[in-house]
Amino acid sequence: MSPTHLPVIAITMGDPAGIGPEIVAKSITNPTIRSICKPLVVGNTDVMRHAANQINANLSVIKVSAAMGSPDTIEVLDPWGTDLSDLVIGRVDARAGDAAATAVIEAARLALDNKVDAIVTAPLNKAAMNAAGYHYAGHTELLAEITESPGARMLLVAPDLRVIHNSTHVSLQDAITRVTHTNVWHVITLLDETLRLMRIVDPRIAVCGLNPHAGEDGLFGDEDHQVIQPVVTKARDAGINATGPEPADTVFNRARDGAFDGVVAMYHDQGHIAVKVAGFFDGVNISVGLPIIRTSVDHGTAFDIAGRGIARADSMDLAIEIAATMANSRHHANNDHKLS
Amino acid sequence: MSPTHLPVIAITMGDPAGIGPEIVAKSITNPTIRSICKPLVVGNTDVMRHAANQINANLSVIKVSAAMGSPDTIEVLDPWGTDLSDLVIGRVDARAGDAAATAVIEAARLALDNKVDAIVTAPLNKAAMNAAGYHYAGHTELLAEITESPGARMLLVAPDLRVIHNSTHVSLQDAITRVTHTNVWHVITLLDETLRLMRIVDPRIAVCGLNPHAGEDGLFGDEDHQVIQPVVTKARDAGINATGPEPADTVFNRARDGAFDGVVAMYHDQGHIAVKVAGFFDGVNISVGLPIIRTSVDHGTAFDIAGRGIARADSMDLAIEIAATMANSRHHANNDHKLS
Repeated sequence: MSPTHLPVIAITMGDPAGIGPEIVAKSITNPTIRSICKPLVVGNTDVMRHAANQINANLSVIKVSAAMGSPDTIEVLDPWGTDLSDLVIGRVDARAGDAAATAVIEAARLALDNKVDAIVTAPLNKAAMNAAGYHYAGHTELLAEITESPGARMLLVAPDLRVIHNSTHVSLQDAITRVTHTNVWHVITLLDETLRLMRIVDPRIAVCGLNPHAGEDGLFGDEDHQVIQPVVTKARDAGINATGPEPADTVFNRARDGAFDGVVAMYHDQGHIAVKVAGFFDGVNISVGLPIIRTSVDHGTAFDIAGRGIARADSMDLAIEIAATMANSRHHANNDHKLS
Repeated sequence: MSPTHLPVIAITMGDPAGIGPEIVAKSITNPTIRSICKPLVVGNTDVMRHAANQINANLSVIKVSAAMGSPDTIEVLDPWGTDLSDLVIGRVDARAGDAAATAVIEAARLALDNKVDAIVTAPLNKAAMNAAGYHYAGHTELLAEITESPGARMLLVAPDLRVIHNSTHVSLQDAITRVTHTNVWHVITLLDETLRLMRIVDPRIAVCGLNPHAGEDGLFGDEDHQVIQPVVTKARDAGINATGPEPADTVFNRARDGAFDGVVAMYHDQGHIAVKVAGFFDGVNISVGLPIIRTSVDHGTAFDIAGRGIARADSMDLAIEIAATMANSRHHANNDHKLS
């Protein structure tokens, strides 16, 4: 993209039996979203046409080979042309899982080839995806494999809270063993870089303790003072504004009150409980540590309300806004780099 | 107490250098609180007089040997008569820690001797208490020892959420090893009994999984399907309305939305993060599995705002209300038992 152009964002439709196509269509009707990016939907043209009609949007849906930026139009990249007209909304179907997964893979390839500036994904149904032969715990794992990025991590963003995870889809026992100097350093630096891409200046980062009360001076477990504390010190020495280990039961309220720009959680539930209790409907999930920019809604396919036109697009709107901001930051950083 | 009388509730003043005396005085000025119980403050008379003056309450503070129920009066049981007039508000002091701890011990003895119907505790300062020679992680551990109750557990109550913990002040590694059939059965039955004392009919209990996504069918750890699932089945067979293991990152929102009356958390931070993010200022902490009824505020001594008259008494009000409800329920249950 050139500085005078908007970033092109590939938006996958998600599982066509869920609310994905509907929220994608809703976000694309949002003038704020149209003003910050050129959206390119990756998925099934008929499914998107159905979703557009469903929300009564006065939009035409056209099949394209690249984003054109046509106003009042949903542009769909659909190299498959699959007939999904007999899919039942709200039901697990391998064909739906296959269509959703292939859309993600295609979008990731477009980003790797610099044909789009970022990708934003709508929700998958894991059972449908598994039935189609894609055995991944989620988007992050699928994208980590496609882009050969074992260091990929999940960053959850609620309206007032940003949390990266040292580990996600592993047992709690495994999560403890993954609290190593190398891993904790990796997530602190990843969070710092990502918050800067999100245009936060000198981000203030809180690092959670692993144990209750961050171990209470070694009374409950050794990891907090033997692993996390030295890495926080090293990060500070490297110019990162990090503090910790902080007691995890109070740090999230402190972050929401403005004391921190981001939090490092040591395991899946430590961060996910906080983010979901804090603001479930507006959350965004960002895969960091990938060579591409990728954000996602932080909710599921909601089969129970799919097809009724009542799904909220707040999370999708925010996912696109963050992806656009990050794409612009990376673009400017690359240009600065070329100039220097 | 007789059926026509209000329950007598011993209320400890907490650390005299913190906000405890102030919030106790505030709660006792609350007409709702006066209408549901006879409060007996256990602590230092001068400290309570100072707190009463500070909030401009039009109350007399008198030293008593038992609750009299006099209107517009703070009745203080103060067998020590210690001079604490030179204590500095907001500072850790061993004498303050000693006064706070001995008040808790005295209140517990009154309850064990059936001289009061329940106890409610204001916040301790752990450093002050330790400086005075009381080495406990918190109230629950102190009360567990006084009452010889190794099965004591912590139940946190926010306005829309009730969470019991399978373990609390131990390392996360220890917390995993404590996820046994015996322990999980113990907390499920304790929660069921306590919710019934809180006048909830046929309480609906959600049991958290230990691992992310409750182990996702054994993909992330074995504890969920090998330990928690069979105990939930056993509880259902015993007539307890329990479900689980449930994914911990979404179960708390479901409970807040009304799907469950209580949640069993497997470790400290799993439950504490949810309760604190959900409603930090109004929370109540209940020690269950003791022979006495004991509730507490769920916040600390707040040394930073102590002595300024600005502390909120919401948590103390709710702690007293819950203690009064539980005391009445136990009283009626005992009477029913005598009649049958």
